[in-house]
Amino acid sequence: MSEIRMIDVGNKPVTRRRAVAYAHVAMSEDVRDRIRAGTLPKGDVLAVARVAGIMAAKRTPDIVPLCHPLPLSRVDVTPELDDSGVAITAAAETTAQTGVEMEALTAVSVACLTIYDMVKAADRAMRIEGIRLLEKSGGRSGAYTAEP
Amino acid sequence: MSEIRMIDVGNKPVTRRRAVAYAHVAMSEDVRDRIRAGTLPKGDVLAVARVAGIMAAKRTPDIVPLCHPLPLSRVDVTPELDDSGVAITAAAETTAQTGVEMEALTAVSVACLTIYDMVKAADRAMRIEGIRLLEKSGGRSGAYTAEP
Amino acid sequence: MSEIRMIDVGNKPVTRRRAVAYAHVAMSEDVRDRIRAGTLPKGDVLAVARVAGIMAAKRTPDIVPLCHPLPLSRVDVTPELDDSGVAITAAAETTAQTGVEMEALTAVSVACLTIYDMVKAADRAMRIEGIRLLEKSGGRSGAYTAEP
Amino acid sequence: MSEIRMIDVGNKPVTRRRAVAYAHVAMSEDVRDRIRAGTLPKGDVLAVARVAGIMAAKRTPDIVPLCHPLPLSRVDVTPELDDSGVAITAAAETTAQTGVEMEALTAVSVACLTIYDMVKAADRAMRIEGIRLLEKSGGRSGAYTAEP
Amino acid sequence: MSEIRMIDVGNKPVTRRRAVAYAHVAMSEDVRDRIRAGTLPKGDVLAVARVAGIMAAKRTPDIVPLCHPLPLSRVDVTPELDDSGVAITAAAETTAQTGVEMEALTAVSVACLTIYDMVKAADRAMRIEGIRLLEKSGGRSGAYTAEP
Amino acid sequence: MSEIRMIDVGNKPVTRRRAVAYAHVAMSEDVRDRIRAGTLPKGDVLAVARVAGIMAAKRTPDIVPLCHPLPLSRVDVTPELDDSGVAITAAAETTAQTGVEMEALTAVSVACLTIYDMVKAADRAMRIEGIRLLEKSGGRSGAYTAEP
Repeated sequence: MSEIRMIDVGNKPVTRRRAVAYAHVAMSEDVRDRIRAGTLPKGDVLAVARVAGIMAAKRTPDIVPLCHPLPLSRVDVTPELDDSGVAITAAAETTAQTGVEMEALTAVSVACLTIYDMVKAADRAMRIEGIRLLEKSGGRSGAYTAEP
Repeated sequence: MSEIRMIDVGNKPVTRRRAVAYAHVAMSEDVRDRIRAGTLPKGDVLAVARVAGIMAAKRTPDIVPLCHPLPLSRVDVTPELDDSGVAITAAAETTAQTGVEMEALTAVSVACLTIYDMVKAADRAMRIEGIRLLEKSGGRSGAYTAEP
Repeated sequence: MSEIRMIDVGNKPVTRRRAVAYAHVAMSEDVRDRIRAGTLPKGDVLAVARVAGIMAAKRTPDIVPLCHPLPLSRVDVTPELDDSGVAITAAAETTAQTGVEMEALTAVSVACLTIYDMVKAADRAMRIEGIRLLEKSGGRSGAYTAEP
Repeated sequence: MSEIRMIDVGNKPVTRRRAVAYAHVAMSEDVRDRIRAGTLPKGDVLAVARVAGIMAAKRTPDIVPLCHPLPLSRVDVTPELDDSGVAITAAAETTAQTGVEMEALTAVSVACLTIYDMVKAADRAMRIEGIRLLEKSGGRSGAYTAEP
Repeated sequence: MSEIRMIDVGNKPVTRRRAVAYAHVAMSEDVRDRIRAGTLPKGDVLAVARVAGIMAAKRTPDIVPLCHPLPLSRVDVTPELDDSGVAITAAAETTAQTGVEMEALTAVSVACLTIYDMVKAADRAMRIEGIRLLEKSGGRSGAYTAEP
Repeated sequence: MSEIRMIDVGNKPVTRRRAVAYAHVAMSEDVRDRIRAGTLPKGDVLAVARVAGIMAAKRTPDIVPLCHPLPLSRVDVTPELDDSGVAITAAAETTAQTGVEMEALTAVSVACLTIYDMVKAADRAMRIEGIRLLEKSGGRSGAYTAEP
């Protein structure tokens, strides 16, 4: 029979923890320019992506079934226009018994979905790509930094 | 001042609509084999990913700020192990005034985040990639099929 | 591999549908009398149970993974004190492609959990029992009435 | 015993409905000027207020216990700086069996709470005031326009 | 580009914090009397307002985008009929790194929206007004009491 | 006037707490055998019940109006086929100022509703029964074990 469980974190120490995640939305140059110019019909894409990413980070345990609830002390979502679309970085922090990778990854994923939604009428071939953990610290398993 | 708005869909016809989205989680071969064997500590990864994807599709308007609420008539989330990890396809359908791309894309994104969460203790360098729309039909703008 | 799916209701006709469910919380006579007298520390137990049941019915597709979202046109939750505790009946109605059994059953279940929560400091041996469908109508499979 | 119930709307006709609501956040001139200049520590107050108002409108039946779920076809939240703070107007539309007053009122209320939250470190004596329905149309009881 | 961020509270001390907020729903005398008499069609208005206010306080970080999640240890919502309608006071408490003003303000706002919803069929000219912080204590910036 | 309130837990000590709850879904032998064989149209019933129970435990304060929010450190939901249907046990743990009975009871209740939903097309006379607390420890009132 299928076994499915939350990990028991009750014996882990309460420590300060931080994670940073990254994602990218690839789109046509034309659309990227319209984001920069602020001329898309749904409005200020990057502002809405920030808000959506922050709100999603707070709801991570409602969205990802086996995640533990956490008192986030900070979430930062930073979208930046680049040559091929929008790059999103999100940092999450807590003082808790388990890490915040999923909060940072959920933040970047939902920020990308939000950009997609606001831009999709102009470009149906967009892609969200490269969602990954950039760095992580504060847990028992030591600090982690992704290879470049 | 920043303009942000939901598109008014009140004058669009109610039609049957369908969308299919795709995503992939790239991971080490070892971890992929442990998913297949069912030996990861959080349990049956693909079953939880299916459930998480379906539930997320239903909550899309809560997660993506400018999405319209929709009465989904069907959501299917299909994960498949491949050479480099897990590929996820999700199909969403409704009879409504607007399309279900965001529901299908949210389903695959959250299914990937769920896989990531259940596997992350074994592989911290995983990537979620290639999230995109495969096909779409039923709307005013005609059917769309992504180029291969 | 485990198959998990929402049923496709896209081809079912939109009809008016209704379901009635029942549940019971068994408790000591003393506690039942304190509910009647309104002297429990958390307050008016039956009023809170009604509100909790109605709100839960509306959130059924968020709580029960494979339920379809539905535009409920009516939910009624009726708690009644009896010899051995509190009996709850809930009626739900919609005009939709699928039935409202789960909405009625979720309403009575959450109303019972709410009563339990408000009373538990006074009686730790309570039981919730007999949760079942009393009647159902409006679907393709015809009307159903439970045997007494 | 306390009676609490959702109104049964199952026999009401499905019509196109619209409601507009208003609210105001009164604050010091200094703080209002800092919103205009964009120099408050939490960032672009009016953009976040728009997003929060739209998202809250969609969640009205989760927040207001006896509200019916509705497929909103449009929500618009418009904040404007004035002499004494920020005025918010929200318009909501649907095609349904019941009206959207509560959606419009929830949108303006949550937009105001969001402004309050983003500004509170700079002015603890703010007030939210004048929350009311400006106009309503599409229901059985006829159109309504508030007296000026 | 618009900057939007949650304040980082990770370096603030964990202290016991309390906030009290106030709001008022102004309505016709006739309607106020029907609330007192309990003869409105949706039922016991003040009981539902209490429950809605308490539940909304717990969901504040889901509703107000930049609010931190908090483990509330107490929420009290007290509605009182007065000459011109219903006055609501809400007290919220926690032991955390940040304050509970927004929880108390969200509680009174949603309690008012709930009253509005239950009464609106009888009086379309109601107003919610005077939403403000009455007192606050436990934070770095010292205690605050609103001027009368 | 009806008094309704959350208990103030602000003065209770933070201790490690645990609760275990039980419930049972009674169904026909035929349907129970189809769950075991995995031949029901919605798929792997017990896997979905586990996920639904875990997710519901985390959302207990959103579902049960007067429950305090809690940082759950572990939730385990274990369904087992028996002679007359499926028995569910759920264990919840936290380190907090109040207990986790409601989290464990909500987990078993929602796991049962999920089983009911997935099986209902095959058996409309199912019953959910015997929902109760099996054991509890860590609070001021001492450990509790239900009589067999």
